Amino acid sequence: MATLRVPSPVPSPVEDAEQLRKACQGWGTDEKKVINILGHRDAAHRQQIQQSYEELYKEKLSKRLESELKGHFEKAVYRWMFSPLDREAVLAKIALTKGLDYRVIIETSCINSTNHFLAVKQTYQNHYKHSLEEDVASNSHGDLRKLLVGLVGTYRYEGDEVDVRLAHSEADILHDAINKKSFNHDEVIRIVTTRSKAQLNATFNKYKDEHGVSILKDLKTENQDDLASALRTAIRCIISPHKYYEKLLRTVLNKSETDEDTLTRVIVTRAEKDLKEIMDLFENRTNVSLEQAITKHIHGHYKHFLLALVGK
Amino acid sequence: MATLRVPSPVPSPVEDAEQLRKACQGWGTDEKKVINILGHRDAAHRQQIQQSYEELYKEKLSKRLESELKGHFEKAVYRWMFSPLDREAVLAKIALTKGLDYRVIIETSCINSTNHFLAVKQTYQNHYKHSLEEDVASNSHGDLRKLLVGLVGTYRYEGDEVDVRLAHSEADILHDAINKKSFNHDEVIRIVTTRSKAQLNATFNKYKDEHGVSILKDLKTENQDDLASALRTAIRCIISPHKYYEKLLRTVLNKSETDEDTLTRVIVTRAEKDLKEIMDLFENRTNVSLEQAITKHIHGHYKHFLLALVGK
Repeated sequence: MATLRVPSPVPSPVEDAEQLRKACQGWGTDEKKVINILGHRDAAHRQQIQQSYEELYKEKLSKRLESELKGHFEKAVYRWMFSPLDREAVLAKIALTKGLDYRVIIETSCINSTNHFLAVKQTYQNHYKHSLEEDVASNSHGDLRKLLVGLVGTYRYEGDEVDVRLAHSEADILHDAINKKSFNHDEVIRIVTTRSKAQLNATFNKYKDEHGVSILKDLKTENQDDLASALRTAIRCIISPHKYYEKLLRTVLNKSETDEDTLTRVIVTRAEKDLKEIMDLFENRTNVSLEQAITKHIHGHYKHFLLALVGK
Repeated sequence: MATLRVPSPVPSPVEDAEQLRKACQGWGTDEKKVINILGHRDAAHRQQIQQSYEELYKEKLSKRLESELKGHFEKAVYRWMFSPLDREAVLAKIALTKGLDYRVIIETSCINSTNHFLAVKQTYQNHYKHSLEEDVASNSHGDLRKLLVGLVGTYRYEGDEVDVRLAHSEADILHDAINKKSFNHDEVIRIVTTRSKAQLNATFNKYKDEHGVSILKDLKTENQDDLASALRTAIRCIISPHKYYEKLLRTVLNKSETDEDTLTRVIVTRAEKDLKEIMDLFENRTNVSLEQAITKHIHGHYKHFLLALVGK
């Protein structure tokens, strides 16, 4: 369930554009007004506001906001203003070019439905005149590359059919390889990158049933290398996106230094989808609500903007 | 250009279905009539004939033909009767399960446009409840698997943009690896499987300009292994599908023993697309027309059927 709250009736895109113009004019910016409007409009409406704004004032709203706002607040608003597909394409590009953040690539390839991910790849091509596959391949190396290219390159089957015998035999293959710490085994990469999610979930269940430990536990090593860690990320995204995001929020909000980029990514990409489920898991797990955690760890307009998106 | 000739006006699907019924009834089959009808109808019309036939006679035309016809003729008609997407999906499945014929997988992934190949993959999933990627991965091994999974897994960018500097540097990477006979080098696989066709063609041109020999020549080794041979196939499909098919026809029609499966595949998949260009190349190269070569190497109804498809 989404956490975004949109007033009813919602003002027209032209009214919103006019109010945003007022908020940006004169000495200083009325950030509160910006948050009150943009933090409470859905994707379609935000697109219309941008269109109306450009027609009325002959400038791009996103450019104007970029120059009016600052720091993490500005970044969060900027990302929020994209359409969902544009946003995922842009986040993937940033993840590839500003020091590889493989988690973003894994999230978009493993959490989205097959056709939504295909649309992200098409959008990526329209923006960057390259395929996501080639940019992932040329910005990663070695075993991690094998995994990432496999994940972005599979048009995964989405049916519910499960081949129980196959789940059994592939659970054994995974267990053998992982117990020898050969995480880069071709068979491990093949299974995780190509099988359907239904089939993989059956395989991971068999793994636990027959070997007594979950594959995620077995993949935890003392000196976690990138590949083992990326494999765990992919498997967690496949098993339960909600739990994956909940854990990610816990990690970025628990550190002495908050990872604002990741926090922003999770909030802006999930606020119109399933942030409610993620927040419930978060509260069950920590006995603190996500709002409280956000209030504790971040500040200023950035805080108020995220609080708007989580439904406060 | 297509070679298929369709009469004008074309009989209605119902008339065709009735004539086909007559051809199949009584003692013996009127193969000539079957060829005269089905060898001169386009894909849309063939679908309508099958529909009309089933409505009229409560049996599947393809099943009936399967039981009436024999040998390579029956196989060719059976394949011809599929819609283009169904046919490519079925051919891929056969290529994977009846002893890996990697050429079929390379043809469908490297010759089709990105979106046509995507449609083939969707059709494959509808038929077999698996992704093409997972079936390719689980039916191939080692280095060849790396190449094939990469080829089927890339949603290739199709723009015309070429990065000349990149073409230069990647031509050098390819040359270095190929000269050391390390055809399985990760960089070789990455470049060939992920770059756009426009970019790859620029890279292959640079390769020849700077190193004096074409990449295809450099890939020819005395003891041609599967990977080198598959790489050459992929590169030839990317450089020029027409030349690739022309050479393939020359090979299968030159042998003491004709490879009818491959011959059928080329004719039925290209007759409605670009078989004319392929035939012209064939005749320029061999001084024998494709019709003459077919007449010399194959016989009976099978021969007459293929001659119909090549436009005789």
